[in-house]
Amino acid sequence: MVKPSIKYLFEPKSIAVIGASENPLKIGHVIVKNIVEAGYHGKIYPVNPKGGEVLGHKIYSSITDINDEIDVATLVIPAKYAYSALEMCAAAGVKHLPIVSSGFSEIGNLAEERKLAKYAREHGMRILGPNIFGHYSAKVSLNATFGPRDIQKGNVAIITQSGALGIAMIGKTAVQNIGLSAIISVGNKSDIDEADLLEYLVEQDDTKIILIYIEGIQQGERLIKALSVATKVKPVIVIKSGRSKRGAIAAASHTGSLAGSDNIFDAIMRQCGVLRAESVDEALEWCNYLSNAPLPKGESTIIITNGGGVGVLATDACEKYSVKLYDDSQHLRDQFKAVTHGFGSTKNPIDLTGEASADEYVLALDVALQDKYIDGVLALYCETAMMTAEQLIKMIEDSYAKYIKIGKPVLFSLFGGEKTERCIKALTQKNIPVFRDVYNATSCLGVAYSFNKMRLITASETIDSAVDIVAIDKIIDGVLADNRQFMLAHEGEGLLKAAGLAGPRNGIARNIESAVKLADEIGYPVVMKIVSRDILHKSDVGGVLLDLDNQDEVVDAYQAIMHNCKAHKPDASIEGVEIVEQVKSGTEVIIGAMRDKIFGPIMMFGLGGIYVEVMKDVSFRALPLSRREVRTMIKEIRSYPLLLGVRGEVRKDIDGIVETIFKLGTIIRNCPRITDIEINPLMVYEEGQGVKTVDVRVLLSNAEKGENDA
Amino acid sequence: MVKPSIKYLFEPKSIAVIGASENPLKIGHVIVKNIVEAGYHGKIYPVNPKGGEVLGHKIYSSITDINDEIDVATLVIPAKYAYSALEMCAAAGVKHLPIVSSGFSEIGNLAEERKLAKYAREHGMRILGPNIFGHYSAKVSLNATFGPRDIQKGNVAIITQSGALGIAMIGKTAVQNIGLSAIISVGNKSDIDEADLLEYLVEQDDTKIILIYIEGIQQGERLIKALSVATKVKPVIVIKSGRSKRGAIAAASHTGSLAGSDNIFDAIMRQCGVLRAESVDEALEWCNYLSNAPLPKGESTIIITNGGGVGVLATDACEKYSVKLYDDSQHLRDQFKAVTHGFGSTKNPIDLTGEASADEYVLALDVALQDKYIDGVLALYCETAMMTAEQLIKMIEDSYAKYIKIGKPVLFSLFGGEKTERCIKALTQKNIPVFRDVYNATSCLGVAYSFNKMRLITASETIDSAVDIVAIDKIIDGVLADNRQFMLAHEGEGLLKAAGLAGPRNGIARNIESAVKLADEIGYPVVMKIVSRDILHKSDVGGVLLDLDNQDEVVDAYQAIMHNCKAHKPDASIEGVEIVEQVKSGTEVIIGAMRDKIFGPIMMFGLGGIYVEVMKDVSFRALPLSRREVRTMIKEIRSYPLLLGVRGEVRKDIDGIVETIFKLGTIIRNCPRITDIEINPLMVYEEGQGVKTVDVRVLLSNAEKGENDA
Repeated sequence: MVKPSIKYLFEPKSIAVIGASENPLKIGHVIVKNIVEAGYHGKIYPVNPKGGEVLGHKIYSSITDINDEIDVATLVIPAKYAYSALEMCAAAGVKHLPIVSSGFSEIGNLAEERKLAKYAREHGMRILGPNIFGHYSAKVSLNATFGPRDIQKGNVAIITQSGALGIAMIGKTAVQNIGLSAIISVGNKSDIDEADLLEYLVEQDDTKIILIYIEGIQQGERLIKALSVATKVKPVIVIKSGRSKRGAIAAASHTGSLAGSDNIFDAIMRQCGVLRAESVDEALEWCNYLSNAPLPKGESTIIITNGGGVGVLATDACEKYSVKLYDDSQHLRDQFKAVTHGFGSTKNPIDLTGEASADEYVLALDVALQDKYIDGVLALYCETAMMTAEQLIKMIEDSYAKYIKIGKPVLFSLFGGEKTERCIKALTQKNIPVFRDVYNATSCLGVAYSFNKMRLITASETIDSAVDIVAIDKIIDGVLADNRQFMLAHEGEGLLKAAGLAGPRNGIARNIESAVKLADEIGYPVVMKIVSRDILHKSDVGGVLLDLDNQDEVVDAYQAIMHNCKAHKPDASIEGVEIVEQVKSGTEVIIGAMRDKIFGPIMMFGLGGIYVEVMKDVSFRALPLSRREVRTMIKEIRSYPLLLGVRGEVRKDIDGIVETIFKLGTIIRNCPRITDIEINPLMVYEEGQGVKTVDVRVLLSNAEKGENDA
Repeated sequence: MVKPSIKYLFEPKSIAVIGASENPLKIGHVIVKNIVEAGYHGKIYPVNPKGGEVLGHKIYSSITDINDEIDVATLVIPAKYAYSALEMCAAAGVKHLPIVSSGFSEIGNLAEERKLAKYAREHGMRILGPNIFGHYSAKVSLNATFGPRDIQKGNVAIITQSGALGIAMIGKTAVQNIGLSAIISVGNKSDIDEADLLEYLVEQDDTKIILIYIEGIQQGERLIKALSVATKVKPVIVIKSGRSKRGAIAAASHTGSLAGSDNIFDAIMRQCGVLRAESVDEALEWCNYLSNAPLPKGESTIIITNGGGVGVLATDACEKYSVKLYDDSQHLRDQFKAVTHGFGSTKNPIDLTGEASADEYVLALDVALQDKYIDGVLALYCETAMMTAEQLIKMIEDSYAKYIKIGKPVLFSLFGGEKTERCIKALTQKNIPVFRDVYNATSCLGVAYSFNKMRLITASETIDSAVDIVAIDKIIDGVLADNRQFMLAHEGEGLLKAAGLAGPRNGIARNIESAVKLADEIGYPVVMKIVSRDILHKSDVGGVLLDLDNQDEVVDAYQAIMHNCKAHKPDASIEGVEIVEQVKSGTEVIIGAMRDKIFGPIMMFGLGGIYVEVMKDVSFRALPLSRREVRTMIKEIRSYPLLLGVRGEVRKDIDGIVETIFKLGTIIRNCPRITDIEINPLMVYEEGQGVKTVDVRVLLSNAEKGENDA
């Protein structure tokens, strides 16, 4: 079902405030006041059964009394009246309802909230909230919040799940000179969530950067889709609290939504191309930089400095934030020799030394500006007596203007005392990117590169692999009919077969002749196991024999197994002896496909045994995946060199791993009743020699669609 | 040799400036001006052969003309005149010589610098520099630098290797309201280095915190000793640039001293109890906080907040900075129930909700103040309309005063707009720890805990293990006499034996009877190897046989080996057959003892094979080590759970590893000609079953004392 557009939530021609009040202490008054005083472009209709007047606007006693089309009605009434207000709004044809009121799921009153959402859905209405501080849209100068009145217009849109933090962020952005195109409090997200808002904001011209503060996610799959689209167009910065285990508990108790494992969240955000900030300060610094910055062409960076010490610190910062330093020392010498002093350095960092004047600085910056191999510049300054504050300001201002004109990023980091402080303040006022610490400057350049890199990756096809889903569904039917939620060995084998995945070859022999024939077909060595539902611990009673290398040994083994089992349990009903290919050892990996409560189907990959259990060396991705993304996922684990071949070993069959991940991904996406498939281990042989599944574990859910409603 | 004290460098009764100038543009003028105008308490003697007068002070034509005792003479003359100036200073009895002049090792002129240092050493003089901006000492109001004149007095001492950064830091600390007790530019460190300065500063009452900016280290062993002592008394913050590989190269080219591997540096700094800051900003923030903060009693922290969102962010920050949150929810409920609102939370974070007034905040802070289970408080504020700026300021000021009185740390993090900004500025002026981001506040509390924890660890005995050093020295004599720098197998075995470390039992048999006898003594299974200097690739020609389980097999093997080798090389001279215990497999670990160019003898530990080679899962320590520190070193590797026993395995013999580390440490400390000893692998068996060295590699140095002069 396509949900109705939320465009008019942001561009309404008219807004009603239901619960508007004459009393200046009431939120229903503050919101009307903010709307009026912030200069909203459309018509304002306060509503309250008591009637009266507020700030020169007549208060209507009911929304149905208003003889106009109402695009948005903000509700500021006690929770218990919300439903009937919704009915009236439906009657009046209102499509967008920010519900400021609290008293819903955040205090356990989920039923009432669901009732509202259901009604709205059935009547083509959209709800924002409940439990929000309102929303702001620069496009029509609409400040329908009970936060600060004056919001600076700009190009950053903020979506926040925390009301308190959101209101404080309005103030904080003003102090930091960051302009907003919109700020939206999403509260309990009974209907409109981050995904809906992303879909709108990504299309909206005013918005250049999107900042999202998330505490918990309900519909992860939708969010993944929306984020993946948005990050190709605009930088999306996400702050998600609850990174730590402890924080995750605090977040859950605070919002009532599941915070999920941060490992998975973090992997998926990277997959979606999101820029994840650790703190609010970091996020706002990125917003501030990106909102004025030109897009870099590539990633080759140069550091220009008048102090060796800060140059080294910046070099460290570049490694931390994955900023690549330009490396051709011959080219650098050719380019910068004329502009560096005797004791300076033309290596990257270019060290102009403390003797550098403003003019010399300009020359060096000009060289970097013109050099087509250089995509971005970190210009560092350590306070010296060689430049006055005025010279420094002018130098930076002029150079920055040239860089902006040509569209090349340059960031300044100034270190020093009062004089430097004055320069930073003056330049910040002019929206020039100057920083007090090289780490902050480098972090901003790093996210600009990250955004650009992810933007340029063309989405590659995410195709399903050839899998016989009908056959698997039939196996699942059988398992569920048997009242189990897990597959038995032969069912798992059936699933692998349907996916075209190679497990150990096997068969059941009912006499010596067929045992020998089967073993010949399978190939030696083989393992033989008794098949009997009366014998549980097969190995303990001598019902399993390994390392059988030829026909003679198979004959002997058949007799020995029969003898052992009969000696153990004379009346056991014996179905036969299973002959199984003895899988030759290889590099063991684990591949898991799971249905995550929040993000839907996800994949896990890691090297077997100790690597997963002790070293926690695994990578995660949300499905669907492209082949390229699967390869990145495999490369991401720390133990990846083992697959490339170390200590004289040859490269392993990575293609086989890719294919297996694909197959499991295809199964879990197309068989909603499966919650978990884990192949552990998958033996990986030398390149070209393929892979072999040793064991597979499949878990099912009873629920019709595999949904987990938390 | 005990070096002369440098106390009078900081507390001189008189100072001469050699190279003082009447010309205000000369550094020789600026330094005199700074000394005069900063109000130095002692006598000032400008010196210049030209004579004249500077700022009301007579310029002496020679230091020998001054009829007074001179404690310090700062040299500001061209490098080429430095030596003769030094001679004159010696004649005049001057003991402390900061040499501002550059033109020495930093431009490759190492010889001249060494000449100065040698002369000074021989005449009981101490040199600071050369290539420095001077030094400042608050105790006598001495600003003998060419940096800014006004330096705010306080309790932070800064030692800096970078001149430019050091001068800029003077300005930066002033802007940030951080007072200094001293700032010392160490430059090329021809004599006085960080270790010397630490020895003085740790005793000096004015200094409460020591901040060191390091680019490269020359005498690591001395530094380790000085740091280990200092960190028990005062917080020592170190910024070392060159963290990244690239940065390390830049640092080396900048200072001409080896930056060393950052892994080793980082491990050793932690071992020494140093607080290592990543950036200058972080370091100064720590200084600022620690210079006014009371020492925490323990580590139980509570977060009090009026916003759930920032509470969760702070919880994440606590995990990042290892700040322990108090956890007894029953106790918290009992304590905080009366002071939290209906929708608030008494779990940690204590959430007072956005409804909280200043008075309610005070109540909550009072509860935390009185609670003896709470050692530190993070008080968070998200801007609301519930408090005016004045109320907020008063609340924080009053609460902080109470906390300071009782000596309990409380840090405030305020998030919001203009109003909040005003509060932060007002409170910062009063030296109250208020922050703009929860991560910064938490980081500061974290270092306070770290310092306190390390301070309280009583230094445990670092003893040598019983090792027959005389026997090892004899083996080394033999190796070097043979013109080798590595030990052969039997020499390595001899070293192990002298250390009391068990290698595989072995012996050489010259006939079948003695082979059987030896094998019986050694115990089965055994390995047998031909001993012949004429046969190089023993395995290839059938000269090695494994898995020999009894006397019969030994007899057969002896004959087979002889037959094989004679067939291969009829005229080979055969000394016999070596019978070696076939070491049973266990958990393989690697233990290395190396002589690091910078830090002297260090130890490395890791799990064998892949763990070291691919996962780089190793830990480092500088020697000597206490048993406790060795255990910490073992625990530090990520794969440590493998030694504790995972996947149904039992705990391994960790005591055996500790003992082996101790033995190697003792050897490398007492045998200076050994540069590397590596046991790889050491087989570690179940607890109580010991360990066994399978292979040892020993490298030697030709140099008399194992010194590596870079």
